[in-house]
Order: sequence, then structure tokens, then C-alpha cells
Amino acid sequence: MNFTEKLKRAVMSSKSTLCVGLDPSPELIPKPLYNQFNDDSRRILEFCRRVIESTKLHACAFKPNTAFFEALGSEGWSVLEEVSDMIPSNRILIADAKRGDIGNTAMKYRQAFFDRLGADAVTLNPLMGMDTLEPFLDDEQKAVFVLAMTSNSGAGDFLHRRFEGRMSLGEYIAEELSKMRENSLAQLGLVVGATHTDKIQNVIGAFPEAHLLIPGIGAQGGSVKNILNALHSHEGIPIINSSRSIIYSGGDHENWEELITQKVLEFKNSLQTLTDRYA
Amino acid sequence: MNFTEKLKRAVMSSKSTLCVGLDPSPELIPKPLYNQFNDDSRRILEFCRRVIESTKLHACAFKPNTAFFEALGSEGWSVLEEVSDMIPSNRILIADAKRGDIGNTAMKYRQAFFDRLGADAVTLNPLMGMDTLEPFLDDEQKAVFVLAMTSNSGAGDFLHRRFEGRMSLGEYIAEELSKMRENSLAQLGLVVGATHTDKIQNVIGAFPEAHLLIPGIGAQGGSVKNILNALHSHEGIPIINSSRSIIYSGGDHENWEELITQKVLEFKNSLQTLTDRYA
Repeated sequence: MNFTEKLKRAVMSSKSTLCVGLDPSPELIPKPLYNQFNDDSRRILEFCRRVIESTKLHACAFKPNTAFFEALGSEGWSVLEEVSDMIPSNRILIADAKRGDIGNTAMKYRQAFFDRLGADAVTLNPLMGMDTLEPFLDDEQKAVFVLAMTSNSGAGDFLHRRFEGRMSLGEYIAEELSKMRENSLAQLGLVVGATHTDKIQNVIGAFPEAHLLIPGIGAQGGSVKNILNALHSHEGIPIINSSRSIIYSGGDHENWEELITQKVLEFKNSLQTLTDRYA
Repeated sequence: MNFTEKLKRAVMSSKSTLCVGLDPSPELIPKPLYNQFNDDSRRILEFCRRVIESTKLHACAFKPNTAFFEALGSEGWSVLEEVSDMIPSNRILIADAKRGDIGNTAMKYRQAFFDRLGADAVTLNPLMGMDTLEPFLDDEQKAVFVLAMTSNSGAGDFLHRRFEGRMSLGEYIAEELSKMRENSLAQLGLVVGATHTDKIQNVIGAFPEAHLLIPGIGAQGGSVKNILNALHSHEGIPIINSSRSIIYSGGDHENWEELITQKVLEFKNSLQTLTDRYA
């Protein structure tokens, strides 16, 4: 089954275009869980396990962010492996790694995330050149999501700026990526931040068939309504990510897991108009 | 001791500006060593140990490339930790991670590489904005090396191109980085590839005080003579990296370790004119 087919099925079975971002910080883990364990690796493992259990019916994808695991060293990486194995096989696993390096190094990153971790998709940073993406493109079961317009204010430093006569560097990246379509077995996607919906129109317009990974709703302030408007004629499937706004929505309450389920349902429902196009 | 002082002492005690890049691929490890072990993690651990032993008198720095360790998953990351502990304390440890992400994620990467791995420096990718560098700048014992001009041909896609009226995006990055000097306790450095010496002049000219990490001599084809010319008036200290050309120079010979020592001496000698400015 190729990536697009798997994604469509995941959207249909969850009736959701929502992705749950797994950014586990020990210091933010609900106290009732935190206090059960003595070490941070165990804490983030159990936290991720319960977040996945509490949200898997209502999310099409999960996106562990590698930084939060690497911060705990090799034990953290081991947790990342266990967490990856917990993602239901009918859901999409996106390794949010934002790697980008030259050929022989990129090949090793491909091994790390596709071959060993078993991710369906990986986020990539194209700054070092579009050739750095190539080692990730030879498998139709996989996808890459390439940074084009991020959700932080610093995106104004480079990605929002005019480049080579295009409206923005982000648009230029989208256009260059679209040219790689016919030589790629993997699906090509873009990361476009929800906090800059005014700016994403020209980016996604440059590659209308691209699947989209859209971070920034919730904690980062992006509005669902603006996203819906921006996507009205887009052909690729949008995956709407929220991390902190979902996984920490239970605070330190004893029933934090129920609260997370409520929150993910709330997000899912707010995206229903969008989801109905695909599910 | 701040980073610059530690770097100067490392250059003086090794009489070398050379950095040995640790890119351990199991399939390229000398057969006499490879055949002694049954698993790849053990192989790359022992290989790195012997490479470090064979080169440490003649190199001021070591640069493990995270991809080559991540390709072996959590066991690989565990090897990365052991290898980091093997680097002599009077040598510079550069984590070649090329990370770049927004604030709370960048903070986790900082923890991973500075706090946990104990690296003196890390390579960073600025595409998502100069604000992504900030979590790495609060410690005078540390340095960051920011991608400005890489050594692959794909650098022509973005970094070589004109941007905001400057000669290249790489030059623009260098200029933006130089503006962060007064607010940074960490030392600020640039990664500039040795294969494009014609293009690095304007990049390093935009930030003459930056320390430089210069990959691309050896296997990637950069010439030492061209580097020497490009650096004649640069104020920051250049760290000249070679990875594959050194670590695999022993082939499958029984005396591969001696051959690596010969090769590193050869590189060191070729850089003597440059090193004499600092040692």
C-alpha cells in the first residue's frame, strides 16, 4: 500500500485529519503520572503510551518530535523506538526530525527513520539543497514533508522573504519540490505553519498536489477557520498537527487522560468541514 | 575556560587546525577490525576508539556526525555517548547534528548536545530563523557553527543564490549571525565548504571574527591551497575537517591504524602554514 492510500485509510477510519504531536517534556507530564516513576525515560514512555491510547480513535497520525527524546540521550532514543512501535499500524507515523544533510549522511538518516524506526514519513530541511532529499524518495510507502513555511516568528528571517523572483523562499521551495514529483516514488509533502495562513496560499499554490503537514494550531495560535479558507482548493491531503495543546490539556488532574480525549475530540470536530472532503 | 581559549589550546597542543570527522559506516570499517565483532554497534564503537587513538596527537577537534550513529538506533546513540566520552578533554568535540527548530524544541536539542553529550560545539541549520539559535547561546564554554556554505553541489540551490541584495544567501546568513555577537555568550561560527573557495570569500568577509568549520577537503575534493588563500585575512580560527579521507585511509590493511596516523600527519603538515598563525 502506498503512502497516500495509507493516509486516506487513516483519515477515513479516524474520521479525522488531526495529527497528535508527541513532544514529551518530563517537567510538563501530569503529576499523577510523573509521581509514579523515578526516572524521566520511564515517565515519557508511559506518558506517550497513554496519550496514544487516549487519542488514537480521533487522530489519523502521530508525530514524535525527535528533540524531546534525544534530550534524554540513548535512553530517550530507546523510548522513541518503543513509542514508534505503539502507533497503531492503521495510523501514520511521522518522525519530526527536520534533518537535512549531504548524500551519504542523508542516507544514514533515511536508515534511522524509515528502515529502523519504521516511520511512514519524515520532516526534512532543504537548506543544503534539494539533492539532500533524494535518499528518502525511493519507496512508495513513504513520504517526506519538506519545511516551506514554519510557524515561528523567525520564519520571517528567510522563508517569508522574496527569493529568485518568487513571493517567498517558501514558495520557491514548494516549486522546486513539485519538479521532483516524476522522479520520486515517495509522496512529497510540505510543512506549512498555521500561524501564517496569509502566507501559505502562494506556497501551497506552487504545489497543489502536495500533502501538507500543518503545525501551529492551538498553543502556537493558528486558527482553524483561516486554515479551512486557505485550503479550499488544495488537492493534497492536509494533516493538521497539534502537540502541546492536546497532550498537556489534562493539566495535573487525576482524570487527565479523559481530558485529553475531550480535547482531541474538540479539535477533530473543529476540523470536520475539512475532514469531510477526504473521509 | 571559554570556547575560544579551549580551541586555541587545542590547536597549540596538537599543533594542528585539523578536525577528524567521525562518520562510522559498518560496511566501510577495515575488515581486520570488522571481523572481530558480531554486531555493528560494537564495530563502530571500536572503530571510533581506534581512530581517535590514532589521530588525537595531530588533531585539535573531533566531529562525530549524528546520522551515522542514529542509523543504528538507540544502540547507535549509546555508542555516540561512549565516543563523546573518549574525546580527550583538551580537544574540541563538535556534534555535527545540523539541527534547527523552534524555541522549545531547540531547547531540547541544546540539552541533548551540550548538557547531556557534553559537546563543546554543535552545527546548526538556520533555515527556520535566527531565533532558533538562541537556546544555544547562553554559555561561554560553547560554540555554534551555523550552516552558511556547504560543500555539496546542492548548495547551489539556495546558499549560493543572491538573497536580499547580498551576493548569496550564505553571505546573508553570515551577516545576520554577526549581528547576534553582542547578545551571545557562546562563540559564533560558520560552516563554509572547502569545495567552493571562490564563494566563501564574501561569506567569511561578512563576519571576519567567526570561527570556521570547513568541511570538504579530501574525499569531497576541496583543495588546501585554495583554503589558505581564502583565509589570509580572516580573524576567527578555522577548523579544517576531513572525515572519510582520514578514517578510511587504512583500507583493509592489517596496519590500518598506522596508515590513518600517516594520513592525519600528512593533512596536518599540509595545513602548517595556516596553523602557524594560531599555534
